[in-house]
Amino acid sequence: MSLLLISQNRDMAPFRDAIRRADADIDTEIWPDVQFPERVLFAVAWNHPKQVLHQYKNLKAVSSLGAGVDHLVSDTTLPPEIPLTRVVTASLADQMADFVLMSVLNLVRRSHDYFLQQKRVNWTVQPAYKKSDMTTGILGLGELGSSSAKKLARAGFHVTGWSRTKKELSGVETYSESELDLFLSGTNILVNLLPLTNDTEGILGLNLFKKLKQPAFLLNAARGEHLTEEDLIYALDSHILQHAVLDVFQTEPLPDSHPFWNRESVTITPHIASVTDPDETALLLIDNYKRVLSGQSLRFTVDKMKGY
Amino acid sequence: MSLLLISQNRDMAPFRDAIRRADADIDTEIWPDVQFPERVLFAVAWNHPKQVLHQYKNLKAVSSLGAGVDHLVSDTTLPPEIPLTRVVTASLADQMADFVLMSVLNLVRRSHDYFLQQKRVNWTVQPAYKKSDMTTGILGLGELGSSSAKKLARAGFHVTGWSRTKKELSGVETYSESELDLFLSGTNILVNLLPLTNDTEGILGLNLFKKLKQPAFLLNAARGEHLTEEDLIYALDSHILQHAVLDVFQTEPLPDSHPFWNRESVTITPHIASVTDPDETALLLIDNYKRVLSGQSLRFTVDKMKGY
Repeated sequence: MSLLLISQNRDMAPFRDAIRRADADIDTEIWPDVQFPERVLFAVAWNHPKQVLHQYKNLKAVSSLGAGVDHLVSDTTLPPEIPLTRVVTASLADQMADFVLMSVLNLVRRSHDYFLQQKRVNWTVQPAYKKSDMTTGILGLGELGSSSAKKLARAGFHVTGWSRTKKELSGVETYSESELDLFLSGTNILVNLLPLTNDTEGILGLNLFKKLKQPAFLLNAARGEHLTEEDLIYALDSHILQHAVLDVFQTEPLPDSHPFWNRESVTITPHIASVTDPDETALLLIDNYKRVLSGQSLRFTVDKMKGY
Repeated sequence: MSLLLISQNRDMAPFRDAIRRADADIDTEIWPDVQFPERVLFAVAWNHPKQVLHQYKNLKAVSSLGAGVDHLVSDTTLPPEIPLTRVVTASLADQMADFVLMSVLNLVRRSHDYFLQQKRVNWTVQPAYKKSDMTTGILGLGELGSSSAKKLARAGFHVTGWSRTKKELSGVETYSESELDLFLSGTNILVNLLPLTNDTEGILGLNLFKKLKQPAFLLNAARGEHLTEEDLIYALDSHILQHAVLDVFQTEPLPDSHPFWNRESVTITPHIASVTDPDETALLLIDNYKRVLSGQSLRFTVDKMKGY
């Protein structure tokens, strides 16, 4: 029996090597060079080609390589009885929380303005935003969102959070599904960490931006498809938003001709907010693989109806 | 009796206004338009002109407007029997701790590289530094240094600290005067928050940089005079240091012709790491002024021999 690693655009060799280091008895295959398709019991997928996984007749479960599962849920050729799982390591949540805290500090302390000023040999003290006047609102309180919210609160920021089902988090004011407008009206810095589903695709649009408290800022570290790109440009140009920090994009790498690149009110990072660590990930993958082998219930399973 | 506000380059009106808001009965004067020099009991100074303060015959104490007192200790015309005090508000320490945390996160997560890449329309994932592999060492554990060290430790960083007299700080490995080399040999990110004294002037030089653990980074948020500027340029060019974040300079504003401006391995901010808040400061100044009036002992006094 074997574990299959499958991706169209990511080198899966480091994950195979990490699995071997952790347990030399596990047989692995890397798509597309699969020697024994009938032995594949468990697949680990990241941006996998559609119309492929259902060909593995003995496949019992599929795991995402990260916290997001939109690429798996949207594969309609996957048999419905095959459970989906995902990888949520302590390191993924910690990296994201650090990235969010860093970005919020950079926005409040105006690092982007000072970086541009340095390029222009310009020494000007910008009026600082008062930390006590700025509320950070986290959209989505899953593992990454909750971890980020708690970290910001511990660092002395006023933090709110919104999720479909209301969560209780120490130091964080939380809102539930019907309270989205109330949540937005008190939020200056909106941090998107929602799962990508039919309901959340395009949610970051002009209608939402207009409901934020001024001055307003956006940080998107979830999926590029959450954002309506032309709305962001309009919102920045009309000062509905002051600045956007974007780590994810509809097309990655972001095409050279994209208008975001040269915009001073946009800060771009190449999808590095939270990067899966092979060794830590291998332990979780091996655990679920062995659960498949022994018929135990899986960990970190995905609700396909909800999409996360 | 009156309180004098004196500075060569800073607008003192906001501090006069804040003192009036807090206590309308206190008479204030702003140098150089002093109506009743003989009534001046207490002076609040920031980069004050030398050879002036000793002319106030009834002067009983002088306060710095911030945490640093080097500008007062170096004024040899000040009568030795006049006590010096300084202003250390919770907000000053909190702002500095946030600035240090933000800068350390930016260095570890390579924000400076990504800023530059964006300017070049370049999507490249840089190998990240592992947070667990990077030690931040705080040079100077006064109020600002201690607060910064504790904040970094709470955010999950490995933090060490060095001070002349060994301090005990929760979550921070501390070193004392004779252990400087040991402290430096374990430090990747060196954060300078020392007071400026004869002993510490120029301490940030090539000899010290060479003792740091690789990869090595510098953050100077104390005084420009701590840094030997030509040594920094040499250390960056020869990759003894990877990057420097500088908030303070020997000449401020930093002259347009200064080589730091155009250097990609230097990040410049215009002395904004920690900015005195007039209202919060007024309360501490008024407290010490009233202590002078009533003959009580002063708070936040400076040891002139030590220089801090």
